[in-house]
Amino acid sequence: MPNISQLSINLATIRERCTISQALDLVARLGIPAVSPWRDQIAQVGLKATVKQVRELGLRVSGVCRGGMFPANTQLEWEANLEGNLRALEEAVELNADCLVLVTGGLPKGSRDLVKARKQVEEGVSWLLERSIPAGIQLAIEPLHPMYCADRSVVNTLSQALDLCDVLGDGVGVACDVYHLWWDPDLQTQIARAGQSRISAYHICDWLQNTRHMLLDRGMMGDGVIDLPLIRSWVEETGYCGFHEVEIFSQDNWWKKEPEDVLRTCIERYQKCS
Amino acid sequence: MPNISQLSINLATIRERCTISQALDLVARLGIPAVSPWRDQIAQVGLKATVKQVRELGLRVSGVCRGGMFPANTQLEWEANLEGNLRALEEAVELNADCLVLVTGGLPKGSRDLVKARKQVEEGVSWLLERSIPAGIQLAIEPLHPMYCADRSVVNTLSQALDLCDVLGDGVGVACDVYHLWWDPDLQTQIARAGQSRISAYHICDWLQNTRHMLLDRGMMGDGVIDLPLIRSWVEETGYCGFHEVEIFSQDNWWKKEPEDVLRTCIERYQKCS
Repeated sequence: MPNISQLSINLATIRERCTISQALDLVARLGIPAVSPWRDQIAQVGLKATVKQVRELGLRVSGVCRGGMFPANTQLEWEANLEGNLRALEEAVELNADCLVLVTGGLPKGSRDLVKARKQVEEGVSWLLERSIPAGIQLAIEPLHPMYCADRSVVNTLSQALDLCDVLGDGVGVACDVYHLWWDPDLQTQIARAGQSRISAYHICDWLQNTRHMLLDRGMMGDGVIDLPLIRSWVEETGYCGFHEVEIFSQDNWWKKEPEDVLRTCIERYQKCS
Repeated sequence: MPNISQLSINLATIRERCTISQALDLVARLGIPAVSPWRDQIAQVGLKATVKQVRELGLRVSGVCRGGMFPANTQLEWEANLEGNLRALEEAVELNADCLVLVTGGLPKGSRDLVKARKQVEEGVSWLLERSIPAGIQLAIEPLHPMYCADRSVVNTLSQALDLCDVLGDGVGVACDVYHLWWDPDLQTQIARAGQSRISAYHICDWLQNTRHMLLDRGMMGDGVIDLPLIRSWVEETGYCGFHEVEIFSQDNWWKKEPEDVLRTCIERYQKCS
């Protein structure tokens, strides 16, 4: 019996060829203990039905993707962003998730002001913390690869995310995704700095040497250049014992394959290569 | 008369629709004082003919692109890489270039060892410095955007490049390209740390919010999200008074346009947006 007691599947990995209901059934049938659903997947059947199915299958939820996307040009936009975060928080609560993953948001349309956008992220997470702490949900700021700075996240290194955590205090940690962080010469130091208490999630996949698409060409563990066992060792040295969540966006490869084949490959590669 | 006394054109910007000879004539005719050629462009007519034309036109050479590409799997490959750098150095000498730009190289084929590749870069630049100092050519390590870590450069931030300079000593500085560095929360600090003596080149273009290709979709100044006047102010605060070199790889847009139109746009946007 393979040891997959810490394996979680981010449901984006099989999003194109099955519904969330089919995905949850499949994950459970293969003996994988946890999942991380996206909000649009939850919306397919509604929160109530998702919660019911997750409970009946005995699945754990390693995270809900996602809150965040704070930076805004107008007060109206800002309030809409906060409101979206409240709904994401509610979903994390009902699903008893280990954390709510926050992708902080990029530059608002037409803006070149990184400092302002980063300040808005700080304000947004601070606002959300006042709601997430009473709700008992850990927030996880996910630093995204610098290539997403313009359009998805103005938080781009683990160091920067931890600086934000330092300012914000308890209740917020980081989601460490190897895809976003592997290149960073400071990674080992920053993982140690984060420590067990602030690593709220650990995401794995691989970086393909010949990446063809900036968003949708992630690799399966073992197919790329990331030294996954090394980064895992740094994470585990902190005492982290949470899930290792596989998250693969791959429009031309894994998203085209049978979900069951994809998950069987995830299990095999998780054990062999990560 | 526009003030373009510090403008330089990296000849990659108009590489697809003219030869190097046509490019040099055109740059000179428009009153732009400097260029930066790529080695394959020089090879079109040979070094001697390139030098002759550059001198006759009275052009300055802000840099030669490029040396570097050090990491190797075998001794044979390593030596071939060093040999290539000697030829690049010779071209920089003959062209009386302000610097030889070094793109350090990514992971060698099949490798996941970033530490080793980075060590090889240090050794390679150190080896080259023993030749470049007597030759009177400044080396400029160009940190490339983290999205090129696997295939082009394991040096990915200005901080990392400056750490390397600290180890290597005199004769080597950095090429600051806004495209690679704009996202970095530590950029202002690191530009100040570099100071005038170690900023060997300053490259400009823009980052398009909706970037469609990881290598060949750079934007013209003003069309993207980079706060160019802000970064320029940080660079000029160090006392930097070298060239501002426009370098745009743009297969679907600028490379398809008439070179003269591209250069006229460079002149206009350089003055208006950067």
